[in-house]
Amino acid sequence: MKILVLSWGDFERWKEIRYRFGDETSVGPSTLPILQKAIKPDWTVIVLPDTLGRDFESLEALREDVRNRLMGFLDRIGAGREVDAIIVPGIGEFPHGTFRGGAMDTYHYTLYRLAQVLPIEGPLEVHFDSTHGLNYITLLTYRALKELLGIAAMTNRVTFTAYNSDPFVPGITRELTINVIEKSEVKQSPLNEALPSSRKGYLGNFALPGREYGSVIKSMEKIGEVTRGAGKLNAWIASVIYGLPLVFGAYYPDGRLLEEALDEVLSAYSENIRVSEKRIERALSLGDGFGVLVKLLYQRKVLKMGGLPKEEFSLEELGEIAERFFKGRIRESTKTELHRLTSSVKVNTNGWIRYSEFLKMMGKNPNPQVDPRNFLAHAGLEANLIEVKREGELYVRYTGEKVLYGGTPAEPEKVITAVLSKAMGVT
Amino acid sequence: MKILVLSWGDFERWKEIRYRFGDETSVGPSTLPILQKAIKPDWTVIVLPDTLGRDFESLEALREDVRNRLMGFLDRIGAGREVDAIIVPGIGEFPHGTFRGGAMDTYHYTLYRLAQVLPIEGPLEVHFDSTHGLNYITLLTYRALKELLGIAAMTNRVTFTAYNSDPFVPGITRELTINVIEKSEVKQSPLNEALPSSRKGYLGNFALPGREYGSVIKSMEKIGEVTRGAGKLNAWIASVIYGLPLVFGAYYPDGRLLEEALDEVLSAYSENIRVSEKRIERALSLGDGFGVLVKLLYQRKVLKMGGLPKEEFSLEELGEIAERFFKGRIRESTKTELHRLTSSVKVNTNGWIRYSEFLKMMGKNPNPQVDPRNFLAHAGLEANLIEVKREGELYVRYTGEKVLYGGTPAEPEKVITAVLSKAMGVT
Repeated sequence: MKILVLSWGDFERWKEIRYRFGDETSVGPSTLPILQKAIKPDWTVIVLPDTLGRDFESLEALREDVRNRLMGFLDRIGAGREVDAIIVPGIGEFPHGTFRGGAMDTYHYTLYRLAQVLPIEGPLEVHFDSTHGLNYITLLTYRALKELLGIAAMTNRVTFTAYNSDPFVPGITRELTINVIEKSEVKQSPLNEALPSSRKGYLGNFALPGREYGSVIKSMEKIGEVTRGAGKLNAWIASVIYGLPLVFGAYYPDGRLLEEALDEVLSAYSENIRVSEKRIERALSLGDGFGVLVKLLYQRKVLKMGGLPKEEFSLEELGEIAERFFKGRIRESTKTELHRLTSSVKVNTNGWIRYSEFLKMMGKNPNPQVDPRNFLAHAGLEANLIEVKREGELYVRYTGEKVLYGGTPAEPEKVITAVLSKAMGVT
Repeated sequence: MKILVLSWGDFERWKEIRYRFGDETSVGPSTLPILQKAIKPDWTVIVLPDTLGRDFESLEALREDVRNRLMGFLDRIGAGREVDAIIVPGIGEFPHGTFRGGAMDTYHYTLYRLAQVLPIEGPLEVHFDSTHGLNYITLLTYRALKELLGIAAMTNRVTFTAYNSDPFVPGITRELTINVIEKSEVKQSPLNEALPSSRKGYLGNFALPGREYGSVIKSMEKIGEVTRGAGKLNAWIASVIYGLPLVFGAYYPDGRLLEEALDEVLSAYSENIRVSEKRIERALSLGDGFGVLVKLLYQRKVLKMGGLPKEEFSLEELGEIAERFFKGRIRESTKTELHRLTSSVKVNTNGWIRYSEFLKMMGKNPNPQVDPRNFLAHAGLEANLIEVKREGELYVRYTGEKVLYGGTPAEPEKVITAVLSKAMGVT
């Protein structure tokens, strides 16, 4: 699928000019028609700030104003209609109005909307035009796009090409060439950030009185669920980075909770945008946790697998996880670990048995404690933490019994989440 | 160390304005003084295009003109003097002159110069201001900076903060707030691109007659050396990604060759910039291979280790490579592989012996062929490819004898480079 993403500023002020792109030329106020003609994208996405809006009746009216004028402009320049407009929160003081709020809202909101329009499967060819964009929106759109594409590349081939035209100089410019300024194959880059454990990490305070902010935070039930489950969600994020198939399968996130949590943050955020005569004030701001949630949900969609989460896995199922979602050294050494486990448990076990017990029965001498380094080295299949069962086929699951960790007995889930939080550098 | 990087455009046209940053305010044409005051950087780097130059006497004169006017401007605004100016090749048609050349030169040249000024050790705190930059230079500087910092983060803690002021609106703006638009801890991200095997991948042709271009390409001896050794250099790049300590140590790149190759490309590039009355034409363009070379040299400096390359390593030395340069799962499973090898070869061997032979003597049945998956799974310590020697301590090296690969005997170096090229997706 081919997608063309453009960062735009105040399109109504652009001058008619001749654009050249390869052998094509086209006269008009924007690069869009010639890019659409040459690239033939299946879908076009225009990212532009809500600071262009002049209707301060309501937030919807403001966005509708931008959208309507944009659609009128697209009609005038003869652009294709397969277009999504992502109208993002901008800031600044303009003749027509003042826009105040958190400066990182732009990034978080762009990320959220891009994650909705980017496909989650199939080869992806992404084209990005920075010609007409405002500096900060262009930079943040570029960042959001690259982060999501790094996740999409986990399972699909993704290419990225960026364009920028020669600079426009009033009175001088007769023709502007559209230049390719970046052309690359996007490397797989799984999410490598952790969810914050505090609700305030998802929705910050920009201008609300402390008590009001406190009661908004307190009311966010879904985010409460997310923060209570942050240890397991972060362990899942780690399972993709470090190649831990049983953690991947057993801690596979509930997509609906992630979606509801995102909706909850966005509702509270929107409800606290004050619209008045020539003024928008966003009293709350989207936090880093919101961004991690967006990427986590997108990654879950890209790494989709039916029937998860569940507790018990055949070795074949774990092998499938490694084969589909892990790469290079991590994939091969995970498959070697699975192979070792299969060769180690050769006889039927007559039900579940802790693997460390099994090893002792075989005359081996496993570490009586969970060692974090062992946990990582063996793809999460640490002998104290897993139970095995062979009934013809071999099955494995994490134990429900306490294990020794740092000298004291502890719940296995606590041990796994602690080991992986530490590996990810979460404090 | 704290570094402040700014992307700048035509600084002589900026208006006096009041900037606010946190609790500080400062009046002037630029964000620099207030950022320097608040951040207190050890070093400041300003990236700006040579298209600002008006002296077309020579390339040096053009750059000197930009530099002198910049230094005069910095004096006037009272900026600190610990400043590097990176004057990068820009393109466009302006009243004072026309600048033509490859649009990706900006990125490659910025990358090259940033790699010279960024430190290679110690914690790094990088601040990036996009307020005053041209769209494409800002975007490409951001990309170059992030790529190098991902490499620096392999051994050091690196944080990154980006700033952009509110938009300036003539006639309206009284004060502009400088906003934080990104704040993150940079994750380790080793170089994940391969060197091209063709010389033309390092220096492209923009406007030279084919024969002249051909003779420039033919004259590049150092690049010839690089392309002939590209298989081994790419294997070293792969060794960092996949955690292969013996490949890392045995194929450690010759830093001087990399430096000389970069100098050679830059000389040919500069010699083919035609300077005439109000016109600059860069007849050659810096290629992707140049960018990979820059990052490779920077990575070699960040992952510096004395006495490399060499052929024979004690297991302790390989463990040190894993401990210092690999992370997470890859580090732990590499150490497990080293441990397995140590436990496997318990007795003195009376000289070097192929490890596959040793295993057969121990009654085992190793794969008679090199299997690429095995090579990755065992951290590059594949039984047919390595020789072991125990004289008290255990030593290991790659064999010089042919090995079976894909059914035919082949040179071990060819096998290793073929396996790793394939893993990296090099075609």
